[in-house]
Amino acid sequence: MEPGDSNSAAGGKTQSASAPPVEGVAGGGTSYGWVDGGLRGTSLGAGVIDPTKVHSEDLLHVWSMPSTANVSQQEAPRPLEKVNLLAARNERESFQIALRPKVSWATSDIAGSVQIQCTDLCSSSGDRLVVGQSITLRRVVPILGVPDALVPIDPLSPQISLHPGETAAVWVSLNVPCGQPPGLYEGEIFITAVKTELDSSRTESLPKSERYRLYRELRSCLDITEPRDYSSPEEMVQRLTSASTTLRRMLDNPALQDCQESNGFGDMMDEDVMNNVSVRLKLSLTVWDFTLPVTPSLPAVFGISETVIEDRFCLEHGTEGWYDALDHHFRWLLQYRISPFFCRWGDSMRILAYTCPWPADHPKANEYYSDPRLAAYAVPYAPILSCTDAAKNSLRREVEILKSKPHWSKAYFYLWDEPLNVDQYDMICNISNELRSYSPDVRILTTYYCGPSGSELAPSTFEAFVKVPNVLRPHTQIFCTSEWVLGTREDLVKDIVAELRPDLGEEWWTYVCMGPSDPQPNWHLGMRGTQHRAVMWRVWKEGGTGFLYWGTNCYEKAMIPSAEICFRRGLPPGDGVLFYPGEVFSSSHEPVASTRLERILSGMQDIEYLKLYSSRYGREEGLALLEKTGMYLGPDRYTLDHGPVDVMRGEVYRTCRS
Amino acid sequence: MEPGDSNSAAGGKTQSASAPPVEGVAGGGTSYGWVDGGLRGTSLGAGVIDPTKVHSEDLLHVWSMPSTANVSQQEAPRPLEKVNLLAARNERESFQIALRPKVSWATSDIAGSVQIQCTDLCSSSGDRLVVGQSITLRRVVPILGVPDALVPIDPLSPQISLHPGETAAVWVSLNVPCGQPPGLYEGEIFITAVKTELDSSRTESLPKSERYRLYRELRSCLDITEPRDYSSPEEMVQRLTSASTTLRRMLDNPALQDCQESNGFGDMMDEDVMNNVSVRLKLSLTVWDFTLPVTPSLPAVFGISETVIEDRFCLEHGTEGWYDALDHHFRWLLQYRISPFFCRWGDSMRILAYTCPWPADHPKANEYYSDPRLAAYAVPYAPILSCTDAAKNSLRREVEILKSKPHWSKAYFYLWDEPLNVDQYDMICNISNELRSYSPDVRILTTYYCGPSGSELAPSTFEAFVKVPNVLRPHTQIFCTSEWVLGTREDLVKDIVAELRPDLGEEWWTYVCMGPSDPQPNWHLGMRGTQHRAVMWRVWKEGGTGFLYWGTNCYEKAMIPSAEICFRRGLPPGDGVLFYPGEVFSSSHEPVASTRLERILSGMQDIEYLKLYSSRYGREEGLALLEKTGMYLGPDRYTLDHGPVDVMRGEVYRTCRS
Repeated sequence: MEPGDSNSAAGGKTQSASAPPVEGVAGGGTSYGWVDGGLRGTSLGAGVIDPTKVHSEDLLHVWSMPSTANVSQQEAPRPLEKVNLLAARNERESFQIALRPKVSWATSDIAGSVQIQCTDLCSSSGDRLVVGQSITLRRVVPILGVPDALVPIDPLSPQISLHPGETAAVWVSLNVPCGQPPGLYEGEIFITAVKTELDSSRTESLPKSERYRLYRELRSCLDITEPRDYSSPEEMVQRLTSASTTLRRMLDNPALQDCQESNGFGDMMDEDVMNNVSVRLKLSLTVWDFTLPVTPSLPAVFGISETVIEDRFCLEHGTEGWYDALDHHFRWLLQYRISPFFCRWGDSMRILAYTCPWPADHPKANEYYSDPRLAAYAVPYAPILSCTDAAKNSLRREVEILKSKPHWSKAYFYLWDEPLNVDQYDMICNISNELRSYSPDVRILTTYYCGPSGSELAPSTFEAFVKVPNVLRPHTQIFCTSEWVLGTREDLVKDIVAELRPDLGEEWWTYVCMGPSDPQPNWHLGMRGTQHRAVMWRVWKEGGTGFLYWGTNCYEKAMIPSAEICFRRGLPPGDGVLFYPGEVFSSSHEPVASTRLERILSGMQDIEYLKLYSSRYGREEGLALLEKTGMYLGPDRYTLDHGPVDVMRGEVYRTCRS
Repeated sequence: MEPGDSNSAAGGKTQSASAPPVEGVAGGGTSYGWVDGGLRGTSLGAGVIDPTKVHSEDLLHVWSMPSTANVSQQEAPRPLEKVNLLAARNERESFQIALRPKVSWATSDIAGSVQIQCTDLCSSSGDRLVVGQSITLRRVVPILGVPDALVPIDPLSPQISLHPGETAAVWVSLNVPCGQPPGLYEGEIFITAVKTELDSSRTESLPKSERYRLYRELRSCLDITEPRDYSSPEEMVQRLTSASTTLRRMLDNPALQDCQESNGFGDMMDEDVMNNVSVRLKLSLTVWDFTLPVTPSLPAVFGISETVIEDRFCLEHGTEGWYDALDHHFRWLLQYRISPFFCRWGDSMRILAYTCPWPADHPKANEYYSDPRLAAYAVPYAPILSCTDAAKNSLRREVEILKSKPHWSKAYFYLWDEPLNVDQYDMICNISNELRSYSPDVRILTTYYCGPSGSELAPSTFEAFVKVPNVLRPHTQIFCTSEWVLGTREDLVKDIVAELRPDLGEEWWTYVCMGPSDPQPNWHLGMRGTQHRAVMWRVWKEGGTGFLYWGTNCYEKAMIPSAEICFRRGLPPGDGVLFYPGEVFSSSHEPVASTRLERILSGMQDIEYLKLYSSRYGREEGLALLEKTGMYLGPDRYTLDHGPVDVMRGEVYRTCRS
């Protein structure tokens, strides 16, 4: 089957529905017996259900959903179909497994537990994608009722709990390494209803009362054998016999019975069990001979709030723990084809932005800046917060070192977030003059959504906005404008671009934050999955050469790692928050990605597909591909379903494979 | 403090909110640090939190909510205040405890577990309301995302799980026995964050690998002590010493360490712990000297589908298990001041309705029919399903026996659900003629919402509807009309009543089902709590003398007790479903009440308060009380908040206590 086919994970069809029967005729009042799910219960009986003795398909619905679906707790079951995916090398492709209990088999609180075991994916030539490394499972957890947080499932105990009347989802990601041989990889995911850990720990492990009994018996046995002056050999025989009796009784403890037969490594199910009772989801992945460039073609720079990390993880600025935390966040975000910068706000949206917490002469700085996955980096303009001579000297030294390095072309300064008036513009110009005296080729990035107030043009007009390059030249090279200004008027792009001087190295980047709002693409919680992914489709279609996002971890202030995540007042839910602290969901310190962050990655990958196609057939054909697949036609006209995404990708695969 | 005071559980105030700070000024980007919940974390640190070492108020929000609140997962925390309740004897009064984690303290999947322990409520004269008997705790579980199912919390292990970012609710009911001495009863509820059962079983009980180790050590110890021919006393000393060493090593197992100190009965917390770390909710209940009549003043007859019970519990009609199941359902519903009838539908809304599954000459029949809690009972008209001579003879015998009993005044026949045409009316008349030949004083109940088609008046006119008694006299005594017909036109009641002949024993009852819909009172899922409770306020204000509801367990067909609950197609969610099978939520066979069923009980209790007040001051004053408290003014004008409910009850208490 060809990837991109309509019954891939994408193709989610709804179950056919016919008219309900006439009221009262079905024999038990209004439309009774209409939804008859075939739960005849013949093998289940009326008592507590033992999931090890029943086929799991009698206990739960299992079906696949594409990565752009928001699988809510009320999501209705669909038929289970084989999942067919396509991925390049160095690409991550994801889909979801939806699970909904048909019955309850746990004895309390939940409907039941489910084990999800994935085989390695194997090609006919013996190549593999290995579970745990290249294949990961995460549970989709609702945030404000919307499925968003992706909490890793422990590969050693891959279980999740299902609740009565609720659909749960598991996010499956396939990460294809750069060196993976192309080919068709096939595997299976076994979904098995199991006894809950608590139910089985009650029966299989030792409850408290049993431990006390064991303890007392061990003590009394020790009393018997404890060395002393024995009166006679008979007494010793007597003691040995008595100890043996006690030991045999202990060995008869029901909780130890399974130790006799089992090998002690029985936590994973054996294949026979899975073949007999598991629901099997067949999975095939076509890895093709395209390798996504390690350095993203489009620099996407995303902010990480230094302040939030300091507060939540109780870290003092500059301590070892602080450096570790920043380093951890930097490395973790890099996997999303994102170029992170740390940031701290000052007065009037003055901002300190920096990609590397270490000074330029530190070995870590070179490691950071020359990482090929980093497409752009922010150089800290330290005087922004305290304008001392020391700060200025240290900045000059930074630039001196960096400008000699090959990675200097990736460097930029981000000084001010959305300057609004002539005073603020003047400050940017002053800094620019200083920076250009250190190195004439510095690049300064400025975000804005309107012209400056206090100039001759009314700041809120489009004309004032579009003329900003005239005011900021040569003090800004990266003119980064809000998509909100364009609204649905894609045609305004040419007016913005017409004002720029590429010959002077000027670039047009864009950003989203509070706006634009629905139905335009953005990353707010509660938007559609394709709406999240379409942010990057929009960037590619409009032709911007970079992208900025203000914050990835900008939740409300908290001073405890596991504190509840609150969104900030006045912002749309999810704005500025693309991942969560792992501590909120488990004892792990690993950040927890949102579905939105995964869709950003997918969008970044889509750009590489579109770029490949355009490099072969020209940009016009690339734009035509967007249109003819129905994937993206404009900020208010893009696909709501996943199908066209797979069609686009499948078409690039079909036409560009060698 | 007087009951009905505004800061009782009812008075839920929202936290005062002031304007957010200016963007960017707070030092970390948009409105950062605004919601600063005081989680300074000084005592919590950055590692995994041990809930036994931290005050629970640092770990979770606890606050009370009235029984009419639908506490959603997104419900925002409020301040914790003392709960003051009022109840008569033989009354159940309920409120809710809302819980929301501030941080996560469990190591996986959930934010943490909470133990909820209630003291007995004691009066100054030493009388008690005992936990487990008079005080019950149930967890509020969402159905289709709406808090509805009330799943009992095991009194021996009163714990619930909290999830990150979700508010949970516990439904607390106080049941005041008939003989309870009036007085002020006071107690406390201790809410304590605890280690999850799984976390503690991991650390405190023996994991599998430890059990294997123990097993091997016991076996090797037995090998040492096992009786045999010993070569010398020295060998025996050697063996005893060696066994002792092994036993000592086993006793050193970390999992057995706590067995040394503890007494082995440490599952309940001791008072010291609770005093030191628990959140304490103070609770006071004024029991007053009014006793709700055991027999409800207003007969409320509610259907239980026999078919649904047979299917879901896999029971064959007429078997011992079948009788047990019906008996169980009957007894369980009686506690809600409801008079149940079992029912099975035939063609064209022909219905077999009966309160007792046993024949009139069976001892159980007398037990059922003379139960003082039963206000009305349906006598089965068996020929409705199979019109044989045997069926007719058996019916005649039933009536012969019943009509001589004192409880005969509670008897009624319910033959047809909403007859629509002259043919159906004729059938009712024929049956009536037959029944009246057995006993001239039979009462026949007929439900309807329009006039018959095929008569001289257009069936859909209000005139045709209001003239139905003329057509059905003397073949119906209980004219049971849909509230949907009235809409918001309360004034139409007098037109309906004007057509009735009380001198002939004719009564006006009402019912709700699919209609009326929002904003009028009904029991659909997703309506407001006061909207559920107002169904009975409406009945009392309109002056009907009885009430019918078509179904309490009419979920979609399933053949397994724990099968997912689906609502029937074409019905509003919750319509015909007032309780759930216990098996869906735990291993219990006890039905699980909905919040809507509890609010029906509260409404039935409100009727007794209003009746008491009216018996003292007249019905006009009773109606004035409804109006001046703002509790209920009409089908689209009743309180949305709980406050006026407590004000009404408090006023009855103030003016009617002796």
